[in-house]
Amino acid sequence: MKTAALILAGGKGERFWPGSRTSHPKQFLCLTGDGKTMIRHTVERILPIVNMEDIYVSTNERYRQLVYEQLPELPKENVICEPVGRNTAPGIGLGAVYMRRKYGDAVMLVLPSDHQIAFEDKYTEILKKAVDTAENGDEGERRLVTLGITPNEPETGYGYIKFDRSSDANGVCRVERFVEKPDLEKAKQYLESGDYLWNSGMFIWKVSAILASMEKNMPEVYKGLTDIEAAIGTNDEVEVLKSAFEAMPSQSVDYGILEKEDSIYVCPGDFGWDDVGSWLALSRLNAPDENGNVFMGNVESTSTKRTIVKAGDKLVAVVGLEDVVVVDTEDATLICSAEHTADIKKLLEELRSKGREEYL
Amino acid sequence: MKTAALILAGGKGERFWPGSRTSHPKQFLCLTGDGKTMIRHTVERILPIVNMEDIYVSTNERYRQLVYEQLPELPKENVICEPVGRNTAPGIGLGAVYMRRKYGDAVMLVLPSDHQIAFEDKYTEILKKAVDTAENGDEGERRLVTLGITPNEPETGYGYIKFDRSSDANGVCRVERFVEKPDLEKAKQYLESGDYLWNSGMFIWKVSAILASMEKNMPEVYKGLTDIEAAIGTNDEVEVLKSAFEAMPSQSVDYGILEKEDSIYVCPGDFGWDDVGSWLALSRLNAPDENGNVFMGNVESTSTKRTIVKAGDKLVAVVGLEDVVVVDTEDATLICSAEHTADIKKLLEELRSKGREEYL
Repeated sequence: MKTAALILAGGKGERFWPGSRTSHPKQFLCLTGDGKTMIRHTVERILPIVNMEDIYVSTNERYRQLVYEQLPELPKENVICEPVGRNTAPGIGLGAVYMRRKYGDAVMLVLPSDHQIAFEDKYTEILKKAVDTAENGDEGERRLVTLGITPNEPETGYGYIKFDRSSDANGVCRVERFVEKPDLEKAKQYLESGDYLWNSGMFIWKVSAILASMEKNMPEVYKGLTDIEAAIGTNDEVEVLKSAFEAMPSQSVDYGILEKEDSIYVCPGDFGWDDVGSWLALSRLNAPDENGNVFMGNVESTSTKRTIVKAGDKLVAVVGLEDVVVVDTEDATLICSAEHTADIKKLLEELRSKGREEYL
Repeated sequence: MKTAALILAGGKGERFWPGSRTSHPKQFLCLTGDGKTMIRHTVERILPIVNMEDIYVSTNERYRQLVYEQLPELPKENVICEPVGRNTAPGIGLGAVYMRRKYGDAVMLVLPSDHQIAFEDKYTEILKKAVDTAENGDEGERRLVTLGITPNEPETGYGYIKFDRSSDANGVCRVERFVEKPDLEKAKQYLESGDYLWNSGMFIWKVSAILASMEKNMPEVYKGLTDIEAAIGTNDEVEVLKSAFEAMPSQSVDYGILEKEDSIYVCPGDFGWDDVGSWLALSRLNAPDENGNVFMGNVESTSTKRTIVKAGDKLVAVVGLEDVVVVDTEDATLICSAEHTADIKKLLEELRSKGREEYL
């Protein structure tokens, strides 16, 4: 069966201000020293198992040109622009009907565009296993597969997957249930038990399986999707897409589908996944120097430790800093203590409330 | 007797990088919220006792245009450019011979251009007292007067003046001796004794007195000065100035004159003097906000304390910082922890050793 991929690239990524802006979010940033954007990395790392012409990108009109620029080899018609944001379930459904229209059926990879993976060979291997698992469901089974990350700390920022370790068959396990972001106490229990994985947001299923599940669990959404599917390639396509999509409820695939289905599998993996949640990720994505610093661009330093500087052509000179993040862009410079990166959102609210939209 | 002033404006001010550069040193920076440069402040604050046409600026060719720009009302011929740097004694002597040529004799104020004074009325009052004292020396006395600052901490970065408190006559005291920058132990003793003042580098004396002292204590320098004096207004002026000045030894007025003379007076004063030794001075020169921050230019902040940001039009956003100095300029941004401002010099050495002269 054909394997196709849907890359989700509609997110805003406020935590990467001032690198990211409403007009230029995280997935279009270069956060590694190789000069490649996050979305470019996402596409390149699946090329061992998916052909470029079978890769689709789900985004919105605002970022269409950025996708074209970053992925010039991608067929332009593979860029699917959601008319409005309706969370992941309608967005994934939309990709699925484009694929059904094109391939009849296919194994569909659903992948965020703004995560990083350190060990690509291991990732490819596990992804192949997931594809096999998804493809081999029984007639009418609605088998859904996800990649789970073996946790190494009691992270409270991720959703978790409770899985049945005893069901392990060649590295594929049954999922018991999906659980929402825990508090620290619960997260510690999850970590200790060994029965939980991080929900990576990466899914693998047959187009037929996910659409059947939508028909069952989200009939409203499914109705809209079939209307859109019927209009693909006709003069009404844009208009129907707009009206049908806008009418859909906003819902995540985790809540709308995964928590309601039974035949869910997970491939646990330790392939150096990083959700690149804040600027601090730069010191995981890039090898720090002997002082723990990561410097990109025109940077000079003295007596500085564990500091991240992302500069451009303009000189950024750091003296005597510890645990600081500096990001210099054309029209704004951020200087943020490492322990306060979450407060960048506060700063953006401040800018918004002052009407300084030019910086957002 | 006429009162004239010589403003010393030839310094480099590396500690104010990247605001200051070799081409644009500290005295030409605006460090207060009123948009006036240090040198402009220096001139304006003596206008109650000196006419603009009697103010002279000692600098070098490189900064001549900056002086013209900052002091457009100053007669252009009052800008005296030293052909080479020879420390303060030859520089002051040079100013003195220009004044002797113009006025015969005068009371001469010698003032650094890069200090700040908070209480200008008090300063004017003390300066008037110093002028009276200098003017009323006996025939042939070589009376030299200096302003001393009552110390409030055991500062090791300044020279000190040991004075005779018991000699106080209407706020003017005899100086016992000048002492070099002390170590912390000594500085503490000085502070505790109450017998020491900080040497402010501000001097008041008759032109005839300082030149007589140079003739006695620095005959080589004095010989050169008389050669220059004879050439003033002739076709040879530039050439004689260059050759005679270059031939002079480099020496400070403290070491060459003050430590060798007997008739030295000091006016102790507490007029809010600040030598503006580093960027940290900005939080003394400008009123900090309720979090102890001083922000100049386009700045936004969240959760930030005791931080100084000097920005221009470009947005500088600070999040979660404490005790940091940020200075943004056209081609370079400095971010420096407050306790490491002395390391800025190290950074400049680094830039120099890498041949990055464009930033110096």
